[in-house]
Amino acid sequence: MQFEPVLHELMQALRCLPGVGQKTAQRMAFHLLERDRQGAFKLAQSLADAVDKVSHCETCQTLTSSAVCGLCSDQRREQTLLCVVETPADVMAVEAATSFKGLYFVLNGRLSPLDGLGPADIGLDKLSARFQQGLIEEIILATNPTVEGEATAHYISEMAKKYAIKTTRIAHGVPFGGELEYIDSGTLSHAFSGRSEV
Amino acid sequence: MQFEPVLHELMQALRCLPGVGQKTAQRMAFHLLERDRQGAFKLAQSLADAVDKVSHCETCQTLTSSAVCGLCSDQRREQTLLCVVETPADVMAVEAATSFKGLYFVLNGRLSPLDGLGPADIGLDKLSARFQQGLIEEIILATNPTVEGEATAHYISEMAKKYAIKTTRIAHGVPFGGELEYIDSGTLSHAFSGRSEV
Repeated sequence: MQFEPVLHELMQALRCLPGVGQKTAQRMAFHLLERDRQGAFKLAQSLADAVDKVSHCETCQTLTSSAVCGLCSDQRREQTLLCVVETPADVMAVEAATSFKGLYFVLNGRLSPLDGLGPADIGLDKLSARFQQGLIEEIILATNPTVEGEATAHYISEMAKKYAIKTTRIAHGVPFGGELEYIDSGTLSHAFSGRSEV
Repeated sequence: MQFEPVLHELMQALRCLPGVGQKTAQRMAFHLLERDRQGAFKLAQSLADAVDKVSHCETCQTLTSSAVCGLCSDQRREQTLLCVVETPADVMAVEAATSFKGLYFVLNGRLSPLDGLGPADIGLDKLSARFQQGLIEEIILATNPTVEGEATAHYISEMAKKYAIKTTRIAHGVPFGGELEYIDSGTLSHAFSGRSEV
């Protein structure tokens, strides 16, 4: 026996959310219909709205509802400095935590041959075209310190070499407030090799 | 710094889902917009559809898109036997696992004074009216074996007594495939007090 078509369809549709399986979808559907119909209605509208309006910024590939995002069109930001990150959320994180005042380039992913993501899929052709324009003087590679993130950073640094652009990588080491005793060996070895003079 | 209004609204809207906080909502929003726009569009439609069409069955209170649900309007089912459960999902579970061929009554909750859920909120006035009709001969109390579920079962059994309706409670004991050594003491004591002759 199955749920009614309308309910069944809602449960199936909820499974498109990351980390939501059959049981969770069922719980979500009942919760929405039983306790929060207004929330469900609002969610339906917001989803339709976002799918309709949000696309990628022509310049930096972040998610935006205009052709060019607010950061890219802000002429007060340093136009010669470019920070390369993996996701739009990373842009927010950097903006919130640092005093970086340059521009961003969002890969919306990382090089990952196993997932079928090659250079063109994460917009590296676009980045290369931007290097060619000659405006960028330094790029800061802020991809995640994972195997794929490191490979992506290496690939981009090789690209930048061709145009003689200065390339820096954000530091990896012991996190603030961390204790050496509990840090994994990979991080600790990074912290040693990346040591700086005091 | 915040996300653009459209994105921000989507993230806020996603938080109406149970168990979804800020970080998860952000991950879900990016996943949908980046990797599964079709899924997001479908979800928006299904949600709007369900909110529009699904309501409670007039007879048993389960979620349905018709006035009376399929089970209640099925004349081949035993009209004298009524199983009381907490949620529509429980109806599915009983249907899938047992050969029960009677009718259901769905409380859509349980008595829970702390959450402000009294007898009228879970439709016990409706159940009482149904007892009064005189068609029901036996009720099977299949609420969950939690404190609230037990209290609800007790409350309904007292109601049924007034109309001299036979009342049974599903058995609680060691689950099939379980081992005594690892069973909690509450379940084990239930299993002993609920023992039956072989």
